[in-house]
Amino acid sequence: MPRYRVTLEYDGTPFVGWQVQAKGLSVQGRLAQAIARFSGESPMPRGAGRTDAGVHALGQVAHFDLARAWPTDTVRDAVNFHLKPEPVVVRDCAVVPDSFDARFSATARHYRYRILARRAPSALDSDRVWWVPQPLNAAAMAAAAQVLVGRHDFTTFRAAGCQSRSPVKTLDRLAVTRAGEEILIEASARSFLHNQVRSMVGSLKLVGEGKWTAADLAAALSAANRAACGPVAPARGLYLVQVDYEAPAGG
Amino acid sequence: MPRYRVTLEYDGTPFVGWQVQAKGLSVQGRLAQAIARFSGESPMPRGAGRTDAGVHALGQVAHFDLARAWPTDTVRDAVNFHLKPEPVVVRDCAVVPDSFDARFSATARHYRYRILARRAPSALDSDRVWWVPQPLNAAAMAAAAQVLVGRHDFTTFRAAGCQSRSPVKTLDRLAVTRAGEEILIEASARSFLHNQVRSMVGSLKLVGEGKWTAADLAAALSAANRAACGPVAPARGLYLVQVDYEAPAGG
Repeated sequence: MPRYRVTLEYDGTPFVGWQVQAKGLSVQGRLAQAIARFSGESPMPRGAGRTDAGVHALGQVAHFDLARAWPTDTVRDAVNFHLKPEPVVVRDCAVVPDSFDARFSATARHYRYRILARRAPSALDSDRVWWVPQPLNAAAMAAAAQVLVGRHDFTTFRAAGCQSRSPVKTLDRLAVTRAGEEILIEASARSFLHNQVRSMVGSLKLVGEGKWTAADLAAALSAANRAACGPVAPARGLYLVQVDYEAPAGG
Repeated sequence: MPRYRVTLEYDGTPFVGWQVQAKGLSVQGRLAQAIARFSGESPMPRGAGRTDAGVHALGQVAHFDLARAWPTDTVRDAVNFHLKPEPVVVRDCAVVPDSFDARFSATARHYRYRILARRAPSALDSDRVWWVPQPLNAAAMAAAAQVLVGRHDFTTFRAAGCQSRSPVKTLDRLAVTRAGEEILIEASARSFLHNQVRSMVGSLKLVGEGKWTAADLAAALSAANRAACGPVAPARGLYLVQVDYEAPAGG
């Protein structure tokens, strides 16, 4: 019974999020439906990360099993055919060992957050960026971000409903760069708490506005208290860019 | 009576194009309406270029006159308020001399065309790129493109309804580069014929597929015959990126 790994791109705007819910269009549910329509089998795909409503993906990863061995190009093209017209596509498909699990085999997750910092709103990307009409000091944000890198108790940056057993995580990278009118924040870790990236971004924005110093950010982290977090950044600016696996499991 | 120059960004998808038409939502018409709602005056803005239906802009330029002298920040913010919810925004506004004309003062126009060359369609940019499911040889396209640079009779790459007096234009730059799965084509000239960029891109795509050589492209140009053109590329991949003016008129 072959196991298939798919890499997915989606626009999170019309979805209630990755995960199947009682109501609403989910990426996972729509993908399951497309797999069933093409193959006649009904596996539930499992994803590397549960993106929230409105969060986008360039490289979400999921796996599922089918009794039949299909050419991987056929799986990709047939699933894409049945995913239309929803804004989600399979970028590629591979057969992986039975030991591969999209969630538990992942060794790193990479997110990007886009802030549009200019007076005029976005015409082309209004559902894809966080529009902040004030100027932001990207250099100050980049320097302050280093306070968060490393192994910490991230309770401050954790959503109330987070199901992770421990609030202690190791943040491997948190880079802030300016690209024209945009500020890009890139975060990498083996795993994240629920809403961790958006919570960190919301607090970094306060640093960019000059309302917080790097010391204020460090104090918020040490507080290990959700109330110390800045306002959480909106979903629309967040992208799950890539999930890494150890070779050969994830090839 | 101050003259205002505005730089506009828009998503061309919902519009019939830049120009006001008897029916349908035009960028020019929507902008005129927003100016009138904010100022109580009814000038018709004039644009640097008439983008077609579905063509996007990052830096379209237009001018209009108002009897009243407003702070330019007020014009930008008030017009943007009245442009909602359409995907068009004023990026910036300046007061310019009466001699300034968005169309006739322009010294150069810069367009970008985005091709997504991969097997899977786009989930995030389906109205923003031309999806070409075949691999394309960007290096061959880049080399062949140089055939078109310079002063030529571009009749082959001109729409039937083009109103330009002469088909002879000077193409200053036609660069083809690969950016991941995308192929970007950047074209610069003082002015272009109607559909010239999309016509050139359509023929370059044939080069990228290996169906045409650079010599075939040169022969199509020399033919000075619309029938020699490859299929015209779709509007959705085209962006008017920037319009240049001589200082101080366009400062």
